[in-house]
Amino acid sequence: MTADGPIAIIAGSGQLPIQLVKHLEETGQNYRVLAFRGFAAPELRRHAHATADLLDLKTIMGVLEGWRPRAVSLVGAVRRPGFSALLGAYSLLRNMQEVKEVIARGDDQVLRGAVMLLEERGHRVVGAHELAPGLVAPPTLTGKLDPQEDDRQAISVGLDLLHSLSAFDIGQAAIVAREHVLAVEGPEGTDGMLRRVKGLRQSWFGLRRRKEGGVLIKAAKRGQDLRVDMPTIGPRTVVEAAQAGLSGVAIGAGSTLVLDQEKSLATADRLGLFLVAVDLPWMEPHRD
Amino acid sequence: MTADGPIAIIAGSGQLPIQLVKHLEETGQNYRVLAFRGFAAPELRRHAHATADLLDLKTIMGVLEGWRPRAVSLVGAVRRPGFSALLGAYSLLRNMQEVKEVIARGDDQVLRGAVMLLEERGHRVVGAHELAPGLVAPPTLTGKLDPQEDDRQAISVGLDLLHSLSAFDIGQAAIVAREHVLAVEGPEGTDGMLRRVKGLRQSWFGLRRRKEGGVLIKAAKRGQDLRVDMPTIGPRTVVEAAQAGLSGVAIGAGSTLVLDQEKSLATADRLGLFLVAVDLPWMEPHRD
Repeated sequence: MTADGPIAIIAGSGQLPIQLVKHLEETGQNYRVLAFRGFAAPELRRHAHATADLLDLKTIMGVLEGWRPRAVSLVGAVRRPGFSALLGAYSLLRNMQEVKEVIARGDDQVLRGAVMLLEERGHRVVGAHELAPGLVAPPTLTGKLDPQEDDRQAISVGLDLLHSLSAFDIGQAAIVAREHVLAVEGPEGTDGMLRRVKGLRQSWFGLRRRKEGGVLIKAAKRGQDLRVDMPTIGPRTVVEAAQAGLSGVAIGAGSTLVLDQEKSLATADRLGLFLVAVDLPWMEPHRD
Repeated sequence: MTADGPIAIIAGSGQLPIQLVKHLEETGQNYRVLAFRGFAAPELRRHAHATADLLDLKTIMGVLEGWRPRAVSLVGAVRRPGFSALLGAYSLLRNMQEVKEVIARGDDQVLRGAVMLLEERGHRVVGAHELAPGLVAPPTLTGKLDPQEDDRQAISVGLDLLHSLSAFDIGQAAIVAREHVLAVEGPEGTDGMLRRVKGLRQSWFGLRRRKEGGVLIKAAKRGQDLRVDMPTIGPRTVVEAAQAGLSGVAIGAGSTLVLDQEKSLATADRLGLFLVAVDLPWMEPHRD
């Protein structure tokens, strides 16, 4: 780590790395992008200074050693590799038994393991929210529509549910209609879960597209390290929520990233959904 | 209710009503079947003494009044109808606001509402487990294979998870690999959840069919009324679990129904899966 080195962006798939790089570019910051082969979007690869396979830790560590970055950020999604592939990759670097235990704990722990590895080598790991605070949902975020009574009940049940699930290695989102939980997010991701609910409703109600109600609630877990896998939504999430017949989307204030806030809110308004940030009782109050 | 009346079986879809009727037939008991149109299997409809639409409570109550049954059992699956359809049906019988509140609480409460309605009219509601105790998984249930260390860890995490979810109106099953939760069952049901995990794994690992591990854990909730929606598995569940690449199935002893236990165990043995009953710390010990 050197105070005048670049910011190193280790980039997986999706829009987040793109928007983060755009922000760093616009604010004139010194950065380098290491793109994961097979994950990073084509338009990001144009900005990439290096590429590596997800599990090629030797190359990744070598590239970082050359850059001497002042901070490293892991952004964008990667699919969980198979257990034995992970084991092989990590075992190049660490005690076998310890690695096995870290991996066995699941996604959260694998990501924390990656942060641990980076920190052990002297890197400072930061979250996208620290590099681009403008991407974080402020407590005041809201579209033109407000949640109705049924929706407020669903949000309350959803937050209780996500809080109860904090101890488990499972998703950060759920879909709730009044008190009825329609889905808990697993490794299929938020979009996958929304399509599942859309499918359920089609098989129940035929192809009628009337709004059935229900709310997507997405929030960081109690105790979550926001430097990795921070909950993220964007305009596409809002479109998928509308297609699943939901009445709106609620996200944790101060701990959720919103890609293209203006477009996300405009999309919600246009499709007749509410989009609001809500305080999470289990998180530190948001500080600006 | 009359002591010498028949047992009334109100039958939805699936194998459970069929096996229950078979049991009542074999043990020479006096019974009547009311089949739900569009749900009950064709082979059950041959045994049906009456049919009704799911929401036609007037017909259902009228039929039961005629039969004067000594006990009523609600068995087999029905899809959750739309909110307004339920509201319409229940409001024929009860105070509108009260009905709205019961329905808003979700599946569990709708079923409890049905039990409540039947009991108010003087019917004794019993579970399939009371009519055919032989269908209940005994604590000794096990196939030829035993869960390995990873599986035992997954079972422990899965039981903790289901216990944490008891307070919420959501499924009775989850799929866990070591400490990593792959899925929580929602309204799509156990088979739907298993197919989802199968799909996830195919997209992660291509079409290779090697066993990835993971356990289906299915158990009654803390405080669950076993007279309705008792957790049920059967040979098909075991086949779907194998296709999802799981290493086995664990079910709550004394509070899970196993359709065709012999065939379920033989299927598990043949496909190389374990199938075991485990004690649920939050249930009363099983009494025979």
